Amino acid sequence: MLVQKKIFRLSELLLQCGRILKDVEVGYETYGTLNERGDNAILIAHYFSGTSHAAGRYNESDPEPGYWDAVIGPGKAIDTNKFFVISSDTLSNVNTKNPTVVTTGPHSIDPVTGYPYGSNFPIVTIGDFVSVQKALTDSLGIKHFHAVCGPSMGALQSLEWAARYPDLIDRVICVIGPGLATEPYLISLVSLWAAPITLDPNFKNGDYYGQQEPVEGLANAFKTITLTCVGYDWALRLYQRRLGDRSPDPALELQGKFAIDQSLDDLARTRASMSDANALLRTARAVQLFSVQERKSRFKAKFLFVSASSDQVMQKAYADRGIKDLRELGLSVEEFVIEGDGGHLDGLNKIAQAAETLRSFLN
Amino acid sequence: MLVQKKIFRLSELLLQCGRILKDVEVGYETYGTLNERGDNAILIAHYFSGTSHAAGRYNESDPEPGYWDAVIGPGKAIDTNKFFVISSDTLSNVNTKNPTVVTTGPHSIDPVTGYPYGSNFPIVTIGDFVSVQKALTDSLGIKHFHAVCGPSMGALQSLEWAARYPDLIDRVICVIGPGLATEPYLISLVSLWAAPITLDPNFKNGDYYGQQEPVEGLANAFKTITLTCVGYDWALRLYQRRLGDRSPDPALELQGKFAIDQSLDDLARTRASMSDANALLRTARAVQLFSVQERKSRFKAKFLFVSASSDQVMQKAYADRGIKDLRELGLSVEEFVIEGDGGHLDGLNKIAQAAETLRSFLN
Repeated sequence: MLVQKKIFRLSELLLQCGRILKDVEVGYETYGTLNERGDNAILIAHYFSGTSHAAGRYNESDPEPGYWDAVIGPGKAIDTNKFFVISSDTLSNVNTKNPTVVTTGPHSIDPVTGYPYGSNFPIVTIGDFVSVQKALTDSLGIKHFHAVCGPSMGALQSLEWAARYPDLIDRVICVIGPGLATEPYLISLVSLWAAPITLDPNFKNGDYYGQQEPVEGLANAFKTITLTCVGYDWALRLYQRRLGDRSPDPALELQGKFAIDQSLDDLARTRASMSDANALLRTARAVQLFSVQERKSRFKAKFLFVSASSDQVMQKAYADRGIKDLRELGLSVEEFVIEGDGGHLDGLNKIAQAAETLRSFLN
Repeated sequence: MLVQKKIFRLSELLLQCGRILKDVEVGYETYGTLNERGDNAILIAHYFSGTSHAAGRYNESDPEPGYWDAVIGPGKAIDTNKFFVISSDTLSNVNTKNPTVVTTGPHSIDPVTGYPYGSNFPIVTIGDFVSVQKALTDSLGIKHFHAVCGPSMGALQSLEWAARYPDLIDRVICVIGPGLATEPYLISLVSLWAAPITLDPNFKNGDYYGQQEPVEGLANAFKTITLTCVGYDWALRLYQRRLGDRSPDPALELQGKFAIDQSLDDLARTRASMSDANALLRTARAVQLFSVQERKSRFKAKFLFVSASSDQVMQKAYADRGIKDLRELGLSVEEFVIEGDGGHLDGLNKIAQAAETLRSFLN
């Protein structure tokens, strides 16, 4: 499946914090065709450090397809022969330097000053991400959603959709998500992800554009995210206690590295080179602020919760509180567990395990 | 029980890295009386950020007893009427500014230069900690250990003792410890604990003594340690989604904090004010380098493994690999699980649950 990035523009957006964001643009992709009634849509919302590239390839030689390509496409579980699938980049998307990502964030030019927003970019929320998606899907003629769906932060957006627009949503699929709110441990874990950025002397309270960027802090943030999102046994299987091959012996020098640290540091540096530190801080705050707990009585959809057995970030036990709440409201909740040693990332990398469950939940 | 800090001095110590450390001193405490045969000793080794203060109070008005006071004392599970209990500060102990801690570390004066070691302090190991303890216990006339014992990094030291001196050790008690080695995930988690220090511009590669110290980085290190060492449900019970009361609203300002972050930041700052960043880095490396896997056939002791049900740092599953290895060698291994929502720290705070198991294992 070949796909194309399109751009949605919105002249202004009223944010939950009360400020108005002007000249908003986000990238989006669609797979399949919207029917005449405009009611065969499935929205896919992306994870924390993800993008709208949920499926397909940009061209024949594209080495990697979108992150959920295993379950989205013609004849696949989320069948693009039947459904019109849409996925968009969030506001303040982390991957600002990825040429296929379009997002309005702290790096964008503030029309008032003519300079990047930097520290003056507002706090954005999961609700604000949904506001943009709603404007986008309205513009495309979508009247009704067969399902809203997403992994991790995508699950938060799906729950927000269902709380805001209960009459527009038939099904909600939360993959490796929390319960109905970001609970305090997760709030602080996300602070931990973000903390290295503010420690970097190049951060300068977020006003670093045009100067040296806080690359070291951002790389450390990505390393923290990656480590918390993988699994213990995965790490053991891949690295054992091997030493890195580009550093002194860790038994002799503090600068020495074990292989796992060398590998995670390399990956983190690559990710940092594609990303913006301010955007990561804003995305972190959006996750922390999430709660639909107070609005749960508005829900009408059927729910499917998919967890990953070795997930250390969104352990099944945390989602279980949300599932219990939904069932007490009389709502239908199905469950599926992805088995594996890859941690939270199994919700992306091993989604194929859930294919038949997804297919039958959607039919 | 009133206890007293004593100081053990060693004119030189050959370290595993090959370097010789001169004028070593460590603090220690003893509880109970060594018998004539010198064979009623129990060694208690402390955890990562702990000290030799395992039990008792320094004076009548001391507000807090040592960390395992619930199980060490006259008539308690580790009965000081029967046993001679000894606990010493590690080399490069983290708590250099705690007046009751005595340790030779990067902050100590290098007799060669007359200045603090700083970046020139050698890499020290769990084995080196044990070397100091062996010299200390020899000096006191201890001939044989009824048990060696400790929580977390103390479990590492206990295993190292049992591998080095199998004929001197009857029993090993590993509380909230790993298996027989620090596995790669834990290696990288410990790197994560340490990383904020090296990001702090005041760190200066460890040569910061007499200048501004990397307090911000050290506080972030302690916050990281604390968050990974507590439990998810504990955080929920204590903080819910409450906001901090000394910062702007997190929904409006990036500097805004939730209550859990405010509380962990406060605790981290207090801990940082008592500690040395270089010492934390050396202790982190000591944990990473630990393995008795290759020497497991030397073991002769009986083992007791105590885990904590909500531990996210040393999950029971990780110790289970070690337990399996030991049983395959024909060794006796008993197990006990502390129930609670406090995470890794339940191995300290809820050790009383294991009291009867400890008592019967020792008798």
